[in-house]
Amino acid sequence: MLDTLWRINMNTLTVKRETLPEAYRYLGGRALSSRIVADEVPAVAEPLGPNNKLVFTCGLLAGTTISCANRLSVGAKSPLTGGIKESNAGGIAAYKLGRLGIRAIVAEGIREDQDWFVLVINKDGASLKPANELCGLTMSEKAEAIYRQYGRSVGVILIGPAGERKQLTAGIANNDTEGVPWRFSGRGALGAVMGAKHLLGIVLDDTGCPQPAPVSKEEYLQKTKEFHQLLLKHPQTAEVFPKFGTAAMMETTNTIGGLPTRNFRTGRFAGAENINGRALHDTIVARGGEGTPTHACMPGCLVRCSNRYPDRDGKIIVSPLEYETLGLLGANLEIGDLDVIAKLNRMCNEYGVDTIEIGCAIGIAMEAGVLPFGDGPAALSLMEEMMHDTYLGKIIAAGCVVAAKVLGVLRVPAVKGQGMPAYEPRGIKGTGVTYITTPMGADHTAGNVARAQTIHHDKEGKVALSAKSQLGMSIIDALGLCMMIVPALPNRAILAEMINALHGWQLTENDFATIGRENIRLEQEFNRGAGFTAAHDRLPEHFYEEVNPAVNAVFDINDEDLKEMKL
Amino acid sequence: MLDTLWRINMNTLTVKRETLPEAYRYLGGRALSSRIVADEVPAVAEPLGPNNKLVFTCGLLAGTTISCANRLSVGAKSPLTGGIKESNAGGIAAYKLGRLGIRAIVAEGIREDQDWFVLVINKDGASLKPANELCGLTMSEKAEAIYRQYGRSVGVILIGPAGERKQLTAGIANNDTEGVPWRFSGRGALGAVMGAKHLLGIVLDDTGCPQPAPVSKEEYLQKTKEFHQLLLKHPQTAEVFPKFGTAAMMETTNTIGGLPTRNFRTGRFAGAENINGRALHDTIVARGGEGTPTHACMPGCLVRCSNRYPDRDGKIIVSPLEYETLGLLGANLEIGDLDVIAKLNRMCNEYGVDTIEIGCAIGIAMEAGVLPFGDGPAALSLMEEMMHDTYLGKIIAAGCVVAAKVLGVLRVPAVKGQGMPAYEPRGIKGTGVTYITTPMGADHTAGNVARAQTIHHDKEGKVALSAKSQLGMSIIDALGLCMMIVPALPNRAILAEMINALHGWQLTENDFATIGRENIRLEQEFNRGAGFTAAHDRLPEHFYEEVNPAVNAVFDINDEDLKEMKL
Repeated sequence: MLDTLWRINMNTLTVKRETLPEAYRYLGGRALSSRIVADEVPAVAEPLGPNNKLVFTCGLLAGTTISCANRLSVGAKSPLTGGIKESNAGGIAAYKLGRLGIRAIVAEGIREDQDWFVLVINKDGASLKPANELCGLTMSEKAEAIYRQYGRSVGVILIGPAGERKQLTAGIANNDTEGVPWRFSGRGALGAVMGAKHLLGIVLDDTGCPQPAPVSKEEYLQKTKEFHQLLLKHPQTAEVFPKFGTAAMMETTNTIGGLPTRNFRTGRFAGAENINGRALHDTIVARGGEGTPTHACMPGCLVRCSNRYPDRDGKIIVSPLEYETLGLLGANLEIGDLDVIAKLNRMCNEYGVDTIEIGCAIGIAMEAGVLPFGDGPAALSLMEEMMHDTYLGKIIAAGCVVAAKVLGVLRVPAVKGQGMPAYEPRGIKGTGVTYITTPMGADHTAGNVARAQTIHHDKEGKVALSAKSQLGMSIIDALGLCMMIVPALPNRAILAEMINALHGWQLTENDFATIGRENIRLEQEFNRGAGFTAAHDRLPEHFYEEVNPAVNAVFDINDEDLKEMKL
Repeated sequence: MLDTLWRINMNTLTVKRETLPEAYRYLGGRALSSRIVADEVPAVAEPLGPNNKLVFTCGLLAGTTISCANRLSVGAKSPLTGGIKESNAGGIAAYKLGRLGIRAIVAEGIREDQDWFVLVINKDGASLKPANELCGLTMSEKAEAIYRQYGRSVGVILIGPAGERKQLTAGIANNDTEGVPWRFSGRGALGAVMGAKHLLGIVLDDTGCPQPAPVSKEEYLQKTKEFHQLLLKHPQTAEVFPKFGTAAMMETTNTIGGLPTRNFRTGRFAGAENINGRALHDTIVARGGEGTPTHACMPGCLVRCSNRYPDRDGKIIVSPLEYETLGLLGANLEIGDLDVIAKLNRMCNEYGVDTIEIGCAIGIAMEAGVLPFGDGPAALSLMEEMMHDTYLGKIIAAGCVVAAKVLGVLRVPAVKGQGMPAYEPRGIKGTGVTYITTPMGADHTAGNVARAQTIHHDKEGKVALSAKSQLGMSIIDALGLCMMIVPALPNRAILAEMINALHGWQLTENDFATIGRENIRLEQEFNRGAGFTAAHDRLPEHFYEEVNPAVNAVFDINDEDLKEMKL
């Protein structure tokens, strides 16, 4: 039964097994993490203080090997945005949660002493283990130390040094199918919340746990097969993503003028063809060695949009190298060199920070003249400063909004405190609408519309497009599914059917739509309590006043237009 | 006639003389600056962007030598708080404005090039003069350069290097009766707004300007005399303030457990007797030389709470040395050494930053372990870092909230982004109520109740006490008066009588109460538009949960209590 909730108090160092409340029965992923945060965390709580909680959840198909069904959701009140936050990732941790019958882990309290811990969960229970020796280690070093102690097949959820230091770019990572611990729940500085709790990691050991037993086995096998056929037949999930990964997006965004370039000053990068999906694929294939252009981050994934990027000797630099990173650490910095971007990415991963937020922050540093745009070696040096925790490094590791305040920079690509991902909002207005209206802050995963067939820099229809996408993503997130499946789904009936077959439920596609819609409302309500108003549903001023020259357009979606937003 | 409004556009480099609109006729000081900001600046404007305006105003008695009647008000949307802000100071600038017949200067637009300007106003008009050679100079160096060019009798309003760099502790200073340019409108980082506009200074030359001619001369002389008698007779204004300056406050706050100590961890400082009003007075008197314990910052001041603090050789270190600075750069850092505090103060003045915000920020750095509490030499080194604009210096110069985000510190003594002045809010709950409810952010000048006869750490009656004080201060601020007169006033009728006699008006004490009340409402409305809600009317979480050990009390005034707030 997938119905356990582990409650961990980091202040008293106690663990408690609970059964998931009945009211949460049908909630997974973001819907469950947001619901627990909304129910248990005061909206005015200090995000790094004792009253915030950090919630890990899996989806309703977790523990199975259904493709794309094992996203790990992490939720809390965000120290970056000051609002409710969910950030999900692939990897194997949610699969392990599912195998262990765990729907949620809720970490409470903080520690202000020198003691650090890891939470170890196996079939016999959960316990907090002293782990001071892991403190200060990079993400890979932490994972290796854990593998030595617990075996290489465990799932691990970790923070890096950035999280320990409560830095506002700190993410939370988990490991992939080959043990690489770089699958990031990157956004919203949830790693800083984990750091404030002195919880360095979670070890998920599913040894001896039974396979999930579908209630309606035949139906389950049939529907799973149907779902997999959808993925294997659609050109996007069957050909484009496996070949080019998420980096396939760059050709689209650069063409339509929506690829953030030079601190979001424009939406088209002259060096894009050196770092786009094709360049990435061809480089990986040509170099060979340990590299691969396609790779499954979650057990059973058929889309395999992940990759391993090797150096000239075929040794892995980073895995995966994704579109957002190529956009923010590449185009946005005018760095058109895959090797440099891969190294920057690796340093971010090892230190445990969000590449999007760091890319935005380096863009601010470049805007301030700390280093020149386009200077790869200088960017690598800056990442060294971050890893060595110098004061300049700390400024970057605090994210773009804080970096701009320290460095005196006016143009900050952020909404609700969070740096924008790689969709320039004047070039791709529908995604811009998502940035300003989602409770998540500037976040493409809350509803990206860059693939829609529309004139993206024309405001017409973009509020409705964003609303539809936000609702769709809220549903996908509530099920713990990967957004990469979306192009292949004619509708969401198949998802309900697989879930019903597994659990013996009688839910409809509409029930999940209701869950998705109610979850957004709940998140909005939390944010209102935290002090957010319509005044925060805006892009930074300069996006309304200065054109993105690639599309010759400002962001012109105003408060009146936003009244059309129906969620 | 005191009815000129100068409008300065820093983008187009144009100046325009206007007559103050009739609707603003009876508004002075904060009431006028806030009204212009509320009328002309969009609530959602970026504070350092082109749509914010910086407004300088004087009071309704400006240009006379009535004691305490020449405060300079500076208003804008604050880059520190994100809300409307007014910060006023003594000095001679407002007196010069009065002599020049100017009620307000409104600076618009920003510059992003390398060119800097000063605004020069004399009886013949106003003009913007190129002033690149002043850029980078300290406050004193800028003032000296201006005196060489325009004579030593001009009024000057200046920013230091901090303002040029748009740093979030940057204040705006004007000169005193002896030409010392250290009278700060310190709060809210209004110096950064001036810096964004590339306006380094304003020179006010009243040569050839006529004396203000009272409409009812005899009445004016009679009422002025009565007012001055009040000041000369009350023990606070006639004895305590002239002898001990504002530092007289420390004996009170330390006794009642409301002197912020060790980053506001407690409210009583063991070294207070080495830095309180008596110690300050005795040291100044013993050292002699250029020092003096009493001094008028504004023309005609009878209270003379200012001072000049000399070193052992009798040479001035700083002037004035005031309570807030002694509290924040002294007790809050556990530095019980007047010479060290005076030097820190001087460095802040020369760099052009608010000593309150810097004291809070250094407290954060001490909490983070950057330097030890109580270490004067280390604090002086830190100020050197600030003046040399190192990255650590930039972190401190960004104020306590940003410094805490960069350095990973949980306990930040700030409300609405602004560091608290030297009244610990669990020890002095009425002032704590002001911190959380005033539109100004944590600001004692919006309504300090530390001198009231009450048990200050008992919540009883504190909401009403704060409300009364906030309203009173709004009235005093609207008239451009100094808050030091308050203890000597049996009521405010005399103020209305002097103003009526000067201008030939028929206003009552009640009319001014209405202006004060309406101004607070206007400021609250602006802040609502800027995104503030009841969720922001709170102290940081730890003040509700951890006791101030000096009074063994937490801050326990809750949302329900605040409903009693009647303004």
